Amino acid sequence: MDELKIIKVGGKIVEEADSLRELLDNFVQLKGKKILVHGGGRAATAMSEQLGIETKMIDGRRITDAATLDVVTMVYGGKVNKKIVTELQNRKVNAIGLTGADMNCVNSAKRAVKAIDYGYVGDIKSINTTSFKTLLNSDIVPVMAPLSYDHKLGSLLNTNADTMASEIAIALSSDYRVSLIYCFEKDGVLLDHKDSSSVIRKLSKDYYAELKQKKIIIDGMIPKLDNAFNAKAGGVNSIQITNHKNLAADFGTVI
Amino acid sequence: MDELKIIKVGGKIVEEADSLRELLDNFVQLKGKKILVHGGGRAATAMSEQLGIETKMIDGRRITDAATLDVVTMVYGGKVNKKIVTELQNRKVNAIGLTGADMNCVNSAKRAVKAIDYGYVGDIKSINTTSFKTLLNSDIVPVMAPLSYDHKLGSLLNTNADTMASEIAIALSSDYRVSLIYCFEKDGVLLDHKDSSSVIRKLSKDYYAELKQKKIIIDGMIPKLDNAFNAKAGGVNSIQITNHKNLAADFGTVI
Repeated sequence: MDELKIIKVGGKIVEEADSLRELLDNFVQLKGKKILVHGGGRAATAMSEQLGIETKMIDGRRITDAATLDVVTMVYGGKVNKKIVTELQNRKVNAIGLTGADMNCVNSAKRAVKAIDYGYVGDIKSINTTSFKTLLNSDIVPVMAPLSYDHKLGSLLNTNADTMASEIAIALSSDYRVSLIYCFEKDGVLLDHKDSSSVIRKLSKDYYAELKQKKIIIDGMIPKLDNAFNAKAGGVNSIQITNHKNLAADFGTVI
Repeated sequence: MDELKIIKVGGKIVEEADSLRELLDNFVQLKGKKILVHGGGRAATAMSEQLGIETKMIDGRRITDAATLDVVTMVYGGKVNKKIVTELQNRKVNAIGLTGADMNCVNSAKRAVKAIDYGYVGDIKSINTTSFKTLLNSDIVPVMAPLSYDHKLGSLLNTNADTMASEIAIALSSDYRVSLIYCFEKDGVLLDHKDSSSVIRKLSKDYYAELKQKKIIIDGMIPKLDNAFNAKAGGVNSIQITNHKNLAADFGTVI
């Protein structure tokens, strides 16, 4: 099987010129087939503010009404996605920007309203592996915006980028030897969040459970790691959580 | 050679729900390989206004400063393009949205400053036929936003959609039997602009020259027809100017 690297980067990294340059300079060094999945939350919040649209977040998740869906479509699918595609082409990487509707590649269903109505937010139902394989096997690098497509509703939906990366990784594990790398601002999962050198190099499922119980791993790190362990259980070959500067190096937390 | 239909539609048609539905319901009827090239000027002007960015037009061309380039990237490449892609997927057409940077498909150079500084506006230098063929031969329908890519400058550039359609048509004429169809609000080129039934069914180069001299064909129709005759001279098999409602029918002005 061919190797495939799937890199997920958050909005903070892709929205700032310096960190985007660091990320992409490292990304181009990665050999073989690759996919980049990006966020863009800060830019969406800034654009909403400019347009006088109130941003509502619950537990870090954006409540996405119709006006906000328009904003994230423009910002994730237009501004941020095309900036990354352009910068990759500048580095002679043959990138293509995608949302879940393009080639029908990421299918979702609108999240059911329970205690909270998240609005136009999608939970991923299936990955169209044929679409990704068509591109990857033509040596094209997909750059994926965090927007999925609900065929039943006939609409794009705002979707968590970490989950999108792990679901794509799981689905493509039947066809490729997949490495999934979550890039964020720290060097890895830390044993002491005040000590940036306290990177946990290897995190097992048992050790993760223990650290959660001891409240050493808390907050936003939990859904990220749940996605990572979900990918591991789903057949993804290797999963790493690290800083974008370490992309080409072997550093960070391995699941 | 396979047949390929390239349809160009202006912003007015794709930005309104009713005309977009009419257009796409007709577009799905077209058999075989096809490409849709769209505009979106009205939506860009509206978004600029919402963001407090002044819109400057000279002879129907948008002066594109850095802030306006951001707007057209979001609106053409995000909002309008993804709306069309989503609506085509709703109709089970396997569409993909593209700007010139995606797969490096449409290359341009920033227009030199002469009497007027158009800003981030690109004149097309080359079409990457390999990129289009890769998609078309996988039965994917490219939906092209009017943004080209200047590799030297490292940026997307605002580009006239009529010209983009004709340049893509000319370039792909070596590989396909290309029909180029310009859709607009009228049924075709009119002999009397007050009489919607006065459609010129067949317009030769000589007849065009005569009608221009007599001031029967004026204003915005001239660059559109210049693009059409340019496509004809460049080897495009058939060129038609018609209303989007006539897409699947044989009506309008044939060049």
